[in-house]
Amino acid sequence: MPSASFQVPHLTTAMVGPLHALEARMLEKQAQIEHWFRCQWQATPPPFYASVDLRNAGFKLAPVDTNLFPAGFNNLNPDFYPLCVSAIQNFINRHNPGLERVLLIPENHTRNLFYLENVLRLKRLLELAGLQVRVGSLSRDVRESTRFDLPSGQHLMQEPLQRQGNRIGTPGFDPELLLLNNDLSAGRPEILEGLEQPIFPPLVGGWSTRRKSMHFAHYRAVAKELASLLELDAWSIDPEFRKCDQIDFMKKSGMDCLVQNVNETLDAIRAKYAEHGITREPFVVVKADAGTYGMGIMMVKDGEELRDLNRKERTKMATVKEGAQVSDVFIQEGVFTFETVDNAVAEPVVYMIDSQVVGGFYRVHTDRSDEENLNAPGMHFTPLAFAQNCNLPDPEGQPDDCPNRFYAYGVIARLALVAAARELAEMQRTLPF
Amino acid sequence: MPSASFQVPHLTTAMVGPLHALEARMLEKQAQIEHWFRCQWQATPPPFYASVDLRNAGFKLAPVDTNLFPAGFNNLNPDFYPLCVSAIQNFINRHNPGLERVLLIPENHTRNLFYLENVLRLKRLLELAGLQVRVGSLSRDVRESTRFDLPSGQHLMQEPLQRQGNRIGTPGFDPELLLLNNDLSAGRPEILEGLEQPIFPPLVGGWSTRRKSMHFAHYRAVAKELASLLELDAWSIDPEFRKCDQIDFMKKSGMDCLVQNVNETLDAIRAKYAEHGITREPFVVVKADAGTYGMGIMMVKDGEELRDLNRKERTKMATVKEGAQVSDVFIQEGVFTFETVDNAVAEPVVYMIDSQVVGGFYRVHTDRSDEENLNAPGMHFTPLAFAQNCNLPDPEGQPDDCPNRFYAYGVIARLALVAAARELAEMQRTLPF
Repeated sequence: MPSASFQVPHLTTAMVGPLHALEARMLEKQAQIEHWFRCQWQATPPPFYASVDLRNAGFKLAPVDTNLFPAGFNNLNPDFYPLCVSAIQNFINRHNPGLERVLLIPENHTRNLFYLENVLRLKRLLELAGLQVRVGSLSRDVRESTRFDLPSGQHLMQEPLQRQGNRIGTPGFDPELLLLNNDLSAGRPEILEGLEQPIFPPLVGGWSTRRKSMHFAHYRAVAKELASLLELDAWSIDPEFRKCDQIDFMKKSGMDCLVQNVNETLDAIRAKYAEHGITREPFVVVKADAGTYGMGIMMVKDGEELRDLNRKERTKMATVKEGAQVSDVFIQEGVFTFETVDNAVAEPVVYMIDSQVVGGFYRVHTDRSDEENLNAPGMHFTPLAFAQNCNLPDPEGQPDDCPNRFYAYGVIARLALVAAARELAEMQRTLPF
Repeated sequence: MPSASFQVPHLTTAMVGPLHALEARMLEKQAQIEHWFRCQWQATPPPFYASVDLRNAGFKLAPVDTNLFPAGFNNLNPDFYPLCVSAIQNFINRHNPGLERVLLIPENHTRNLFYLENVLRLKRLLELAGLQVRVGSLSRDVRESTRFDLPSGQHLMQEPLQRQGNRIGTPGFDPELLLLNNDLSAGRPEILEGLEQPIFPPLVGGWSTRRKSMHFAHYRAVAKELASLLELDAWSIDPEFRKCDQIDFMKKSGMDCLVQNVNETLDAIRAKYAEHGITREPFVVVKADAGTYGMGIMMVKDGEELRDLNRKERTKMATVKEGAQVSDVFIQEGVFTFETVDNAVAEPVVYMIDSQVVGGFYRVHTDRSDEENLNAPGMHFTPLAFAQNCNLPDPEGQPDDCPNRFYAYGVIARLALVAAARELAEMQRTLPF
């Protein structure tokens, strides 16, 4: 395994003072935090997996996006693969210890070889946990068993999905469980409806039903609970947000709602900045309430800016992945990124399987300011794997030592995971399918 | 964390041919093996922890001792601590997710600072899993809260055990679970009898009731199951054994039984060696059926040797740890150690928490031949931590590559763990206390 490429990243934060307090509080209350999480997982089991994008502004450490169909497992530090395997085994033990055959259903990006490296890595991790795994594609490009040669020198086989009655599989392979690595941005495929095999994460977790505003409403509730346990202002871990629906960027309809909510959000942030003595200018991030991949995302410092978008900007905001139209819009407090690696801004992404943090990496981009969203279209980030895991705080170290910073990351990422678990449970309870 | 001291050990095996076949079979059947283990843990939950001493003779890979109260956690590679924490959390989740307070009850070796480093490491791992932990001592040397300064520069606090009714604790600390790191060689202490708090591992797992012959009888049964799954001769993973009771080495009574059983065991090994074309001279290891720490252990190549023991040798065989008298004797096939590190024989020890392999190390000793037991009185072994874990086989590597050798070690160690789980379940079912 390469080791030099997974060295400890050199981190700097512009404002370490207040974060010290946040991290110190987490270290001090570590036993209570872990106990709290255990009770959460008893009440609501975690999703199969998730990744959480965090922003670390020094005075604030918060999630900005929670992905229920994470890609990027190939970017994790191989030292943590044993943790991934162990976490997969925990999931299997809880769900169905007799499980033998799993079908992995990836995104249709058959030409994105880096994405396919992620699929291969996931497949290998599932196999290491003792499962038989096939990759079954929804893509029209995969009409027969197809070999994809990858940059790593390995290859991935994808096979066409076949449905027989209420079961799905690939030729000669009848899986007992379906694992989605496809966020259903293009809608719920007919072939996956009404199956007798369990699907993880469930179809309701896809973007045809999921809403960021719903996730962050659940996050608000869990952040309050944890903040009360930690005896700190919940705002220091919870981003402000609002939502608007029935927006049509192309027809410029619904703009009043958008401008008003953006300005309300900015005012709320401004009040909090004043309270905490923060002198930066607040901004919000406007993005699709349903969707991913950073298309349809913009930074706004004044709601009126939204009235003056040119055609190109409006087109960009109006569509997300797979050409889906944006009508529900999510307005989120912009959290500055104060972490840098070699003078480039760095955004931590934490990966979880079952209830376990299994690693993470920094998205590092040299050409962006610390306010900009790093997960943007055409973005070429450098993944810098965390050198250490997030579950090993060192109470004798300084709060901003790497292991302790990573512990804090793991706590906030798992908090978003609790929110996602509650969100999925609520959707499964209330949606008619 | 030190890294140079945890480098990959340079391993050589004198006979790699047949072991290739064994390891290749395990890699080939990995999914079935993991599935089989999952089903075992459903039927019989694993003990809280265990360590297993293995011998790797090239043509045979087998456990020779299974310790239910393992010391030596301080010898594991710190890279694997996250796995330890995750495994402890799995145990808690299964046993009692609301668990907050654990009392760790160590051996009475208050002057063995290396043992106390192990206790501190265990305590820290439990704390990292989110538990409040105190160390409560059975030793008369600990009459008040006592600080032990350790070679690592850290310190361990031990407190006197206090009993109130059917609960035990330390001053101001009322634990919900007791974790034994004391093998009860001196018998079951009165203060631990009839408690309402659960004790892990259970008291019946101590040497006042446990017998190696019973463990290896269970091991024989599970080894047969796995060997049938792997389609190989169970002998290649299962050491021959016999037992004798009512032996008194000092009075030389019971020697006929001993000589006869030693010779029967040697004959059985000889027949297997002939069948497999192995030209080494067979030997057996004679040890106490109840006990640990390598006192009362000897190598025998002919049963008649046992009639000619001198007084010193008989005294050595007659007692084990804490001065307990040996009357039940266990006769075990000697498995050669072909692994060497820098020309010294190396004995792998694999550590497990819950059902998870969490690391291991080699006992390395330069002054012993490959037939001798490395865990002997006064032994000064060098622990050489495994650089890689045992759950990450590399199907594209050679079978004797480190990851694959370690996977085989993990399989055989977990096989002994299944045997230990069945053994404990049977004792809890059949013993009247």
